[in-house]
Amino acid sequence: MQKITRTTTSSSSTLKDGVSTQTTHVETTTTFKPIPATKTQESPLGSSVKETKQPAVSSVPASKNKTPMKFTDANFPLGEDGRTYHVGTKLGETANKIITVGDPARAELIAKHLDADVVPIKVQSKRGYLTITGAYKGTRVSIVAIGMGMSMMDFFVREVRAVVEGPMDIIRFGSCGSISDHIKVGTMAVASEGSISVTRNFDFFTGADATEPYLISQRVEADADLSASLVQKLNEFVGSGKVSTGLNVTADSFYCSQARKDVRFPDANSDLLASVHARYPSAVTLEMESFMLLHLAKCSGRTAPGNGATVEPELSIRAAATTMIFADRLGGAFITPEQVEELEVSAGKACLEALVSTA
Amino acid sequence: MQKITRTTTSSSSTLKDGVSTQTTHVETTTTFKPIPATKTQESPLGSSVKETKQPAVSSVPASKNKTPMKFTDANFPLGEDGRTYHVGTKLGETANKIITVGDPARAELIAKHLDADVVPIKVQSKRGYLTITGAYKGTRVSIVAIGMGMSMMDFFVREVRAVVEGPMDIIRFGSCGSISDHIKVGTMAVASEGSISVTRNFDFFTGADATEPYLISQRVEADADLSASLVQKLNEFVGSGKVSTGLNVTADSFYCSQARKDVRFPDANSDLLASVHARYPSAVTLEMESFMLLHLAKCSGRTAPGNGATVEPELSIRAAATTMIFADRLGGAFITPEQVEELEVSAGKACLEALVSTA
Repeated sequence: MQKITRTTTSSSSTLKDGVSTQTTHVETTTTFKPIPATKTQESPLGSSVKETKQPAVSSVPASKNKTPMKFTDANFPLGEDGRTYHVGTKLGETANKIITVGDPARAELIAKHLDADVVPIKVQSKRGYLTITGAYKGTRVSIVAIGMGMSMMDFFVREVRAVVEGPMDIIRFGSCGSISDHIKVGTMAVASEGSISVTRNFDFFTGADATEPYLISQRVEADADLSASLVQKLNEFVGSGKVSTGLNVTADSFYCSQARKDVRFPDANSDLLASVHARYPSAVTLEMESFMLLHLAKCSGRTAPGNGATVEPELSIRAAATTMIFADRLGGAFITPEQVEELEVSAGKACLEALVSTA
Repeated sequence: MQKITRTTTSSSSTLKDGVSTQTTHVETTTTFKPIPATKTQESPLGSSVKETKQPAVSSVPASKNKTPMKFTDANFPLGEDGRTYHVGTKLGETANKIITVGDPARAELIAKHLDADVVPIKVQSKRGYLTITGAYKGTRVSIVAIGMGMSMMDFFVREVRAVVEGPMDIIRFGSCGSISDHIKVGTMAVASEGSISVTRNFDFFTGADATEPYLISQRVEADADLSASLVQKLNEFVGSGKVSTGLNVTADSFYCSQARKDVRFPDANSDLLASVHARYPSAVTLEMESFMLLHLAKCSGRTAPGNGATVEPELSIRAAATTMIFADRLGGAFITPEQVEELEVSAGKACLEALVSTA
């Protein structure tokens, strides 16, 4: 594992974590080169970067740049200035502390909580990723919308890890269904006990000799400190009667592997929730991204696969996840737009507070 | 399996497949109810529908509607007018014949080939899906951009199957890396031999007792007729020296399960391509969506899991996949923007030709 060293840094009016204030843009002059080194390119990338003028956060998303991109490294494609191929950010445009959401509109909403005196950077990628980097109470933070699914989370974690120096903290703020009698629509759940994955075993359906329709993984832990901060701040900003904890279940489908009944497909999932609860009684939420975040956070910087390996400190990631309960999968209720908006504002604030307050 | 019956249809100036021409919009008055039946809702969905004025295809994407959505069925959420939750279309807005791509810009480019005398419907969903429905040489077709990853393909197939009546044909037109010495950047590959999946075995990395870092599935077939049409039309429109056939490999990551070296993560994938080729010598392309399309096409309407089950004809899906070679994973070359644009135009035309000409 190559050691990453910061070779040069420069900023003005610096607060903690290198945030420059009272300037027209967030500036980073570090000469660190991501791994692998950036290749020389001939034309700009198809991502657009917008450094918003005051007021700090505009409600208008960055327009898309139609200039064709060019990349030359088939192994880990990077643009001429070091932009990643899918998320589209380069060194200096993503903070070490990140809140990640699915919906770009949610990212914009949370960004309204950011400090008004630091102009955020916005990067909208052609592949649907939106990064907003600014400051919260003087600490540099990014809010990144990633879309849906474990593959989208995989792109995100790997491509931000490639362009950020040093230890990272990442909080997922998503939506989910509840599979617990005690956790109701319109409340928040923190995956304090970590997450498992449930994935479709394709061979059961279109192959031969497979005996199980779904594969249930072992548990991966969430970071204890970040999770505890999330619970504390959600209690404070959303309300102490509205915060639960437990084990998250991350599925590779909104339908089959979340035990939804889609009568057009023979999904063999009638017993799936019972199987999950038999093995993991504390499973409380069902969604599609948290496991991959926690899993890759545990893998980042490890010298070898497996939990016993040591971790390169400069590549370490602490991760935690909290989700709004959108659907009651036992009773059938679905959240109202008013409940969503209220939760996004208050829980978004709580996530920012947890992100900057965790030692 | 509930039988789906068309109860009422009405259209004017009808060509084959129910396309109305010389009108200001594509009209469908069928009273078919998707399964499950639409629930009564109180406010409109957060998707926007744009029926473009002449010229038939505008280069301006539909703007996003900020009106909050409301859904009440936690099992299979549908909007008040039957719109699906993620793809955002309702009955009548998606054709039985579909080309699906990843990049929304590619969908817009292909839509320029559509008949000028039929005004297309455009639906842009909040979750990144773009549907353009019009006609090609008098046959009704849709072009749907779905983003990236098998989960995004799963949303797409299930949600269009829920709002389209009768048999469907779906062609994926994507991008990929080549793992064959004979298939070069800037050419086309057709997955005539079908597809396998390669997925990360999470327990190998963050669990215990797992012996294999990646799970390799059994093969799922592509539709032979659609694949043959694709080969024929690509030879005609792209060039006969530029079309190869073989087995596709669909991975759940752009990085680890495609055997890319990401030095920040211990991915244990040095032998992965060799393992794939040992089991499947005809594997030629690597990407992230085709397997899920072919797999779900084989599952749709089956009376039970497994290849021996019968299929409900009204729910049947024929599917095939072709991909542009963007990366040479053996030699390291990457496609130029000029090559991409040329291929998207000519191969997009070939896909439309194959879609409407396959009996």
